[in-house]
Amino acid sequence: MRFTSQTSSDGVTERFFILGGIPGVLWAPEDAEPRALVLIGHGGGQHRRAPGVVARALRLAAGCGFAAAAIDAPAHGDRPRSAEHERIITEMRARMGGAGDPAPLLAELHTLLAAQIVPEWRSVLDALGDMGPVGYWGLSLGCALGVPLVAAEPRIRAAVLGLSGTAATPAGAAAGVTVPVRFLVQWDDALVPRAEALALFDALASKEKTLHANPGGHGDVPAFEAGSASRFLARHLG
Amino acid sequence: MRFTSQTSSDGVTERFFILGGIPGVLWAPEDAEPRALVLIGHGGGQHRRAPGVVARALRLAAGCGFAAAAIDAPAHGDRPRSAEHERIITEMRARMGGAGDPAPLLAELHTLLAAQIVPEWRSVLDALGDMGPVGYWGLSLGCALGVPLVAAEPRIRAAVLGLSGTAATPAGAAAGVTVPVRFLVQWDDALVPRAEALALFDALASKEKTLHANPGGHGDVPAFEAGSASRFLARHLG
Repeated sequence: MRFTSQTSSDGVTERFFILGGIPGVLWAPEDAEPRALVLIGHGGGQHRRAPGVVARALRLAAGCGFAAAAIDAPAHGDRPRSAEHERIITEMRARMGGAGDPAPLLAELHTLLAAQIVPEWRSVLDALGDMGPVGYWGLSLGCALGVPLVAAEPRIRAAVLGLSGTAATPAGAAAGVTVPVRFLVQWDDALVPRAEALALFDALASKEKTLHANPGGHGDVPAFEAGSASRFLARHLG
Repeated sequence: MRFTSQTSSDGVTERFFILGGIPGVLWAPEDAEPRALVLIGHGGGQHRRAPGVVARALRLAAGCGFAAAAIDAPAHGDRPRSAEHERIITEMRARMGGAGDPAPLLAELHTLLAAQIVPEWRSVLDALGDMGPVGYWGLSLGCALGVPLVAAEPRIRAAVLGLSGTAATPAGAAAGVTVPVRFLVQWDDALVPRAEALALFDALASKEKTLHANPGGHGDVPAFEAGSASRFLARHLG
């Protein structure tokens, strides 16, 4: 892991890194050892420093004394698309334009991305070393890729997930999630059918899991849910 | 309103009262004016001083500096059953024993009780006078009777509801609820069909409403939801 730049502001240090060609960011409290580490998974079409990712990282670092890390998902941000990515994305767009049902291709894309990012996240965890208990916070694409990660990685002790459903999430992965989960649903989400979101929550094997549903579309998660999710992570990692 | 007894402990004063034959309890911080008032609706078969009611009241008084009030619902606690109550309850029990579907009778009972308790709660509010912004916290029966109360009473500015569904709640009342609502669902509730609970949340006309669902049965609401509900009320009434 090679750190390429560092800036500090308002008590939080932000460091860019590269690990095996994967670009990432690490946020941490400036003047204290972090009490825990939260991996943040960005949404579809976003990247490691999307506004929602940065907002969560700053909240965790400044508010909870936690470190936070984000990486570009494969085919996102500064990372190239493979021929396979291009094929699926092109066909998916054609179907969104009326040439059929895009859902199976979204599932195929997410399964492909998950197979890549799960070992990548695990190598990031290895490289960062022990920064305390580990959590995960990813919605939408960050949930679809986070469910198999949380299932595979025993260092992760609690997760904030949501804005995704069974069809968009690699099959079977939810049954491997056993840690406490906060799961966000937008009640009028035009991108995620309500029944599929509820079914994904249902499929999580966690004994402690709480679904929070709010009115509005995919992008309308109320601001208070971020504070509530931080408290959830602080309760389980702090 | 006649106060009949008063005790204090741990900074909270508990006073029993009678108003027009209705027995009630008022909790308040011992040494300060209350910042708000929360009406607490007890569950089916319970009464004004059931353990869950007292726990909420003490949390609100000691933790938030709020007053809290509870009354026995008609046909509950120290209040008599009318011939009409007896008829419905007897028939409902027979059907629960195998003589048919009890759901329509539960709806009939709740509609009857709501018609009685809504004006009773309003008279309690009148008698207590101004104690600051008013909230409501009622689950199960306390939700079925609370939905029409919150719809009818403009002094109530926020409500914690849940553990009930469309079939058990007076028809049409949910569409009159417009204040912020926290709505609790138990994912494996054997008494409230999941679809009916989700449909009741759906029917609330509130612009701000959040559903919290947790695994387990009707009585298994996790302890952290009480703290979260208190913070919700403090946010809207404080």
